[in-house]
Amino acid sequence: MRINGKPYHTIWLSEKNSSVVQVIDQRKLPFVFEILDLKTPEDCFHAIRDMAVRGAPLIGVTAAYGMYLALLCYKGEDLKNHLHERAEYLKSSRPTAVNLAYAVDVMLDLMPGNLANSYLKEISLAKVEELKTREICFSEKIGEFGLEIIEKIYHQKKKPVNILTHCNAGWLACIDWGTATAPIYKAHLKGIPVHVWVDETRPRNQGARLTAYELGQEGVSHTVIADNTGGHLMQHGMVDLVIVGSDRTTFTGDVANKIGTYLKALAAKDNGVPFYVALPSSTFDWQMEDGIAEIPIEERNPNEVAQIEGWNGNTIQQVRLIPENSPAVNYGFDVTPARLVTGLITERGICKANRESILALFPEIRNTKAQLSKNK
Amino acid sequence: MRINGKPYHTIWLSEKNSSVVQVIDQRKLPFVFEILDLKTPEDCFHAIRDMAVRGAPLIGVTAAYGMYLALLCYKGEDLKNHLHERAEYLKSSRPTAVNLAYAVDVMLDLMPGNLANSYLKEISLAKVEELKTREICFSEKIGEFGLEIIEKIYHQKKKPVNILTHCNAGWLACIDWGTATAPIYKAHLKGIPVHVWVDETRPRNQGARLTAYELGQEGVSHTVIADNTGGHLMQHGMVDLVIVGSDRTTFTGDVANKIGTYLKALAAKDNGVPFYVALPSSTFDWQMEDGIAEIPIEERNPNEVAQIEGWNGNTIQQVRLIPENSPAVNYGFDVTPARLVTGLITERGICKANRESILALFPEIRNTKAQLSKNK
Repeated sequence: MRINGKPYHTIWLSEKNSSVVQVIDQRKLPFVFEILDLKTPEDCFHAIRDMAVRGAPLIGVTAAYGMYLALLCYKGEDLKNHLHERAEYLKSSRPTAVNLAYAVDVMLDLMPGNLANSYLKEISLAKVEELKTREICFSEKIGEFGLEIIEKIYHQKKKPVNILTHCNAGWLACIDWGTATAPIYKAHLKGIPVHVWVDETRPRNQGARLTAYELGQEGVSHTVIADNTGGHLMQHGMVDLVIVGSDRTTFTGDVANKIGTYLKALAAKDNGVPFYVALPSSTFDWQMEDGIAEIPIEERNPNEVAQIEGWNGNTIQQVRLIPENSPAVNYGFDVTPARLVTGLITERGICKANRESILALFPEIRNTKAQLSKNK
Repeated sequence: MRINGKPYHTIWLSEKNSSVVQVIDQRKLPFVFEILDLKTPEDCFHAIRDMAVRGAPLIGVTAAYGMYLALLCYKGEDLKNHLHERAEYLKSSRPTAVNLAYAVDVMLDLMPGNLANSYLKEISLAKVEELKTREICFSEKIGEFGLEIIEKIYHQKKKPVNILTHCNAGWLACIDWGTATAPIYKAHLKGIPVHVWVDETRPRNQGARLTAYELGQEGVSHTVIADNTGGHLMQHGMVDLVIVGSDRTTFTGDVANKIGTYLKALAAKDNGVPFYVALPSSTFDWQMEDGIAEIPIEERNPNEVAQIEGWNGNTIQQVRLIPENSPAVNYGFDVTPARLVTGLITERGICKANRESILALFPEIRNTKAQLSKNK
């Protein structure tokens, strides 16, 4: 997608120097657009941990590049040990993201440590590019399947389609296209008039900061709203469709996503508004049955609630929002039960949020599950 | 209630000078505690319009004091005209607040303009004090009725009662005690352990700024949360009771309150958490039947969403939260349909949120309505 008219991915290998990885520093958006050079696995670790990059697909690819850089940077003799050690280190940057561990392990499997170094560099770079392409491709497929939903509403309504989204499941969380935003971009590019209600998404304001930014840069009509507003809009027919992303979805259809998603799902249900979740299949948890009981909810630093960051006219500044002696608490996610979800938009197609429908789309998992239960 | 251990009302006549009214400047809380002198009706107008004072009961009393000051300040001959003109002026400070017009008219009715000035001053001051006392008394009654609900939960649970509230329907919005907070203070003073989840209440953050402040000053255990959090807490049994205030309630039980209230009511219903609305009877709209269709929803300045105010360590500062070219929209209220409301806590007692139950508590209205429909 574009920034200032120029197409970008969220991460790429420097054109000038193939031992430098570059990312957009998302901590500074939308106030400052800055590109960050990552030259070592340590740089990648800090970019992930300090959230210069965020979003499961982007984190995974950043860590994969970290393994590539670990190879480039190494000067000693025991390469295998070095790579294993750097792999664990990179995985520890944000231990809850499933894609992170997966991407690191893929890279590690590729690096037996007994191949000629130059060849290893080539194949590991090719692998990173493959992971990256896969993410882009999955996002695009989600976009194409989701587009059908938007098109259908547009053909019925013959007026701009109003879509509400929460947090940033946009291209900035991925490599390109995004998950929840992919159908929106596809519709916009096809000339279907869309308007997006952007939940600001307290406490970290990824909606107000990142989703509004990327939609604006792509020329998509949008309006930022306080998280409290969605219910009122739905009561008054001002929302045709909700699309959100997911951090983890059980194979029974319960959806963990940014805190507050559940409240929007309730309002959608109460007002007959379709509520879709867009997710690559890597987001499915094939073990968990009961999302509310089983999915662990990250409790983050309460200062993210007590303080906020914004632009003071000169620089990015933090201000305190609450009385000095008042405590705050900061749960990062909530779980929307499957009964409130109209459908899941995956790279394989759209399915209902229930066991049968999900496993029908992923027969290889159904077969593995059947085999496992037979062997018990 | 107390601030720094000293009992306060939100508004009072200066002890040193009976021609000066004093208020707590609520624009600066919780960062700075400052008392503002109001010496003229113009001072009262600005205090209301610029929200140094806010909350329907407090606005009403401030305007009544404004009429008293209009009397004191007048030096000319045509007092009656002067008072009528100042009355209209004061009413225009925030035209949507019902209590404001009511309080001004009560004062105007009292001032025929042909009485000796010194006597007028006395009776008008007595009337303001009467209005003030009435508000305090109504809040206390709401507190006593609401206390019964909290006590009942405590006796069943034998553990601290967790109460969630939205916005500030606290003593700072009233003269003392508050509406939604009155039962909480009564419980706390009776030694019943309570803990309050304080919704920050974007965009103006009255929860994070005012409710947290007044609960903290009164020593009530509380935790500030992002508005997105309540649903997750309810799913996990961490909320026993929701109490909110109201800006307007239809006689059929639909409740207009700060934007986002509806989302909490949905979550309460979905999780079997009782959802109560505390309101003095002056908040009832005896004409409207369908709250969602009929109650006008104030659209406020979008800058309240695009920007936020906080403490930068030295002073209160505004920072921008969204991209420069992104639009925002700011609806002030939403309507919670009666079907989601467990009960209404009024100064006359608790009733269900439906026509029969409300009118049974206010038989004089029922009789007037019956008379009117007979005369048609």
